[in-house]
Amino acid sequence: MKKRKILVAKIGGNIIEDKKALVSFLEDFARIEGPKVLIHGGGKSATQLASRLDVKTEMIDGRRITSAENLDIVVMTYAGVINKKIVAELQKNNCNALGLTGADANVVLAEKRAVQFVDYGYVGDVIQVNAEVINGFIELGITPVFCAVTHDGNGQLLNTNADTVASEIAASLVNLYNVSLFYCFELQGVLENINDKNSIIEYIDSEKYAKLTESGVIADGMLPKLQNCFDALHKNVNTVHIANASFIKDKNIKHTTLSL
Amino acid sequence: MKKRKILVAKIGGNIIEDKKALVSFLEDFARIEGPKVLIHGGGKSATQLASRLDVKTEMIDGRRITSAENLDIVVMTYAGVINKKIVAELQKNNCNALGLTGADANVVLAEKRAVQFVDYGYVGDVIQVNAEVINGFIELGITPVFCAVTHDGNGQLLNTNADTVASEIAASLVNLYNVSLFYCFELQGVLENINDKNSIIEYIDSEKYAKLTESGVIADGMLPKLQNCFDALHKNVNTVHIANASFIKDKNIKHTTLSL
Repeated sequence: MKKRKILVAKIGGNIIEDKKALVSFLEDFARIEGPKVLIHGGGKSATQLASRLDVKTEMIDGRRITSAENLDIVVMTYAGVINKKIVAELQKNNCNALGLTGADANVVLAEKRAVQFVDYGYVGDVIQVNAEVINGFIELGITPVFCAVTHDGNGQLLNTNADTVASEIAASLVNLYNVSLFYCFELQGVLENINDKNSIIEYIDSEKYAKLTESGVIADGMLPKLQNCFDALHKNVNTVHIANASFIKDKNIKHTTLSL
Repeated sequence: MKKRKILVAKIGGNIIEDKKALVSFLEDFARIEGPKVLIHGGGKSATQLASRLDVKTEMIDGRRITSAENLDIVVMTYAGVINKKIVAELQKNNCNALGLTGADANVVLAEKRAVQFVDYGYVGDVIQVNAEVINGFIELGITPVFCAVTHDGNGQLLNTNADTVASEIAASLVNLYNVSLFYCFELQGVLENINDKNSIIEYIDSEKYAKLTESGVIADGMLPKLQNCFDALHKNVNTVHIANASFIKDKNIKHTTLSL
């Protein structure tokens, strides 16, 4: 039997912070027919709230060192105000959204990252996604909307990278669906030259990825994002794109397609 | 066909603020077999966060005047940190909890309260509970955990009284279930004499309710709580109790039973 298609889309902080861009994206997302899942980040809002509360924010390689106090801020921001505003906006657009952390219905189980060189605090690495529960929601006509908070099954919430959550959720669904994973951000795709927004690399396969990494064209935050893309492809996710938010309604705009 | 039983339990701020009491309650709640729903408040945490953020909290007759800024605080607190900690703790106790606002899966639709003598701001009155969606979750083996945030279906989240949300959810389920509604708080029940914690009124029917209200025995915060109880009974909720949290595991302790 031919598998049904599902879209797994991830939106990052730059869209979330820009109210107009977010509302426009959510209208487009709501219009997409068929099964779909949304994952969102929200790092900047958490940093702003931390600052207002006089709580120190410490980042190492773009990852938040998550103390107990930082975790509360992350949960308030991601699972609270960002997630619920997105859900309410999707409902307005007749998309039956359901906001989730990984703890809800035990959908994403993680483990606290072990301390090696850095103690990241309450940061979790995904160990299992419960695809049957996600599918159960979809069968009820629901669109799951995930923030990047997970749990360890022992009562502890954990801060988790949103790109990784998206990759793992996409990978978990491959037995049930033909899965498209779409990392949506403010640029048009992966850039050959970071100072030239038009220098979009349209296709990246494993070989090219290795070359681009070696030459330093892909660096910093783009490195883990691409790693998440290739992890998804290795786990049989069918298509992976990195593109601008507007790609969701216009497949003809330039973007980056990843392949093995 | 005999209807299945369902428990609709509501816990208030005093249990939520006391970590030990909350953990103990959730252990007991998790152990209860069969369909169940939890609704929680959390007013004190929102007030504390507002104070840390230098946002003014204004209450009239125990109701929060909810500005846009207060609403964000309410959503961060109720839907964010309180709801997700309860969900993670229930998951630890093998109860497959799913945290919800009324916006999630459009479960509780409300309307912004019209300004009469007081402008309550972003406060919502429940107009519809989607019992079929709640039942859909229960059929998936899920225990819904509601915070008292709802939405208007037009993108606006609304702060709603948790006792009322509990009453309306209980009432929505009467066609599908034999519904027990349990308002759980720090006292043993409704008191004859507010200064004597042992003066529990064990039975209150409509007639007694009228007398107790008239004589001033029932006043302040207990008035709307009892009104929610009677609203539920008028809408055919089968049993309604006001009792201490420990009533959930020990039905022999003194408590207040409401009837028409």
